[in-house]
Amino acid sequence: MSVLTPYQIRQQCRSGAFSDNTSGFAPGFVQANMAILPKQYAADFLQFCHFNPKPCPLLGMAATPGAIDMPSLAKDLDIRSDLPKYRVFKDGKLTDEVTDVREIWRDDLVTFLIGCSFSFEESLLADGLEIRNITEKVNVPMYRTNIACTPAGVFHGGMVVSMRPMLPADAIRAIQICSRFPQVHGAPVHFGDPAAIGINDITKPDFGDAVSIKPGEVPVFWACGVTPQVAIANAGVDFCIAHSPGHMLVTDLTNSKLSVL
Amino acid sequence: MSVLTPYQIRQQCRSGAFSDNTSGFAPGFVQANMAILPKQYAADFLQFCHFNPKPCPLLGMAATPGAIDMPSLAKDLDIRSDLPKYRVFKDGKLTDEVTDVREIWRDDLVTFLIGCSFSFEESLLADGLEIRNITEKVNVPMYRTNIACTPAGVFHGGMVVSMRPMLPADAIRAIQICSRFPQVHGAPVHFGDPAAIGINDITKPDFGDAVSIKPGEVPVFWACGVTPQVAIANAGVDFCIAHSPGHMLVTDLTNSKLSVL
Repeated sequence: MSVLTPYQIRQQCRSGAFSDNTSGFAPGFVQANMAILPKQYAADFLQFCHFNPKPCPLLGMAATPGAIDMPSLAKDLDIRSDLPKYRVFKDGKLTDEVTDVREIWRDDLVTFLIGCSFSFEESLLADGLEIRNITEKVNVPMYRTNIACTPAGVFHGGMVVSMRPMLPADAIRAIQICSRFPQVHGAPVHFGDPAAIGINDITKPDFGDAVSIKPGEVPVFWACGVTPQVAIANAGVDFCIAHSPGHMLVTDLTNSKLSVL
Repeated sequence: MSVLTPYQIRQQCRSGAFSDNTSGFAPGFVQANMAILPKQYAADFLQFCHFNPKPCPLLGMAATPGAIDMPSLAKDLDIRSDLPKYRVFKDGKLTDEVTDVREIWRDDLVTFLIGCSFSFEESLLADGLEIRNITEKVNVPMYRTNIACTPAGVFHGGMVVSMRPMLPADAIRAIQICSRFPQVHGAPVHFGDPAAIGINDITKPDFGDAVSIKPGEVPVFWACGVTPQVAIANAGVDFCIAHSPGHMLVTDLTNSKLSVL
């Protein structure tokens, strides 16, 4: 399966043949977080992304409300069917998990695509660095922090961070590599003492799974794409569609195109 | 005095009018560490620099034994007189500190110039970061470590590091900035636990002065230009001339020219 092109994966999502986690599929290609909101929220959400580029790096936005394509990121895209799995939220609550949202699509819905850490993890692995959550075959641990996002309209909340433990010399190398990728969260925002950013127990992530931290390693924290989901929940929007965690939109853009250097 | 050009400073060194520490003079211009060795050691020392580019980033080497100029780095240079102060070593021991070495110059002496942390400190300050040793008006603290340099011929020894305490978020920014300057030690080599690199007491530097470390800060360690001096001492070379600490060669090269990005 891993030799499928991004277009083939999207086509299999559309036909219903593929509904899995996309981790490890289409190596080298950008995978994106997705948020779809009614147009009355779109200007505020765009501003929230603009104000908070590290947790909410905007890769793309639909040209108009109702548009289902995004030609600059994916050929022949139908955003309503080309992800493997969707979550539907009403009044801030998860109401459904489906493989297709064509039946509930509305002409006032605006699609946003946000960068994902899969892109920089690929570059870290290519450099020979270990990524603990990959080694231990679990989801990356994520934590709520006391780092406040800059609010915009109805959207507000604390930054969520992902954590990867590393030896200090490896963390320095990871900072260099991730600095080249500002559109997929960029350099870490913190390392070392979890309490300094409001994390009380590093062994109990708020999202994802705990990973082991070995002697000599420090936790390294990156701004995380779960942040906008928390802001959307805080905003109490009446309707929202998002990707199901780990079930991303696979785009035609290569990760190397996101490198600014 | 700080408005003097590099050329004017070198001329005042030559005439004897200037014999001070060069810190803060000629802002924007590269200042260099200097080592002058008899030619029988030159090939080994060049190899040592090549093998250990982080502590020994070679900015320049005299074209031939006995040459007193380095046209690519400094106009009309006479390396025998154009630094404010020199140290002379015989059989590994400091025997003299002078403002001019014309009388002891020999036709077999080979000059090496090595990058200095003054260059990256300027970029850190320009970005708004605090450098504690500058704030506290002392020399940067430096420590011997258990990080082994790669030996070359007679030259060998552990890496010496300089230390600047920072909050983690500032350390991440410093890593980004210093990564642009590989010829002046580049990114840090370690942060956090001093014992992990063989430093037993952070309050007792082996060279320079101690600085305060405030709550929430971590020590950040850079490869240091004192490393080649230790290797030269270990090699037991019979004759060597070096700059006096802090009394550097001020070159005509701007720091911005050392940026690889």
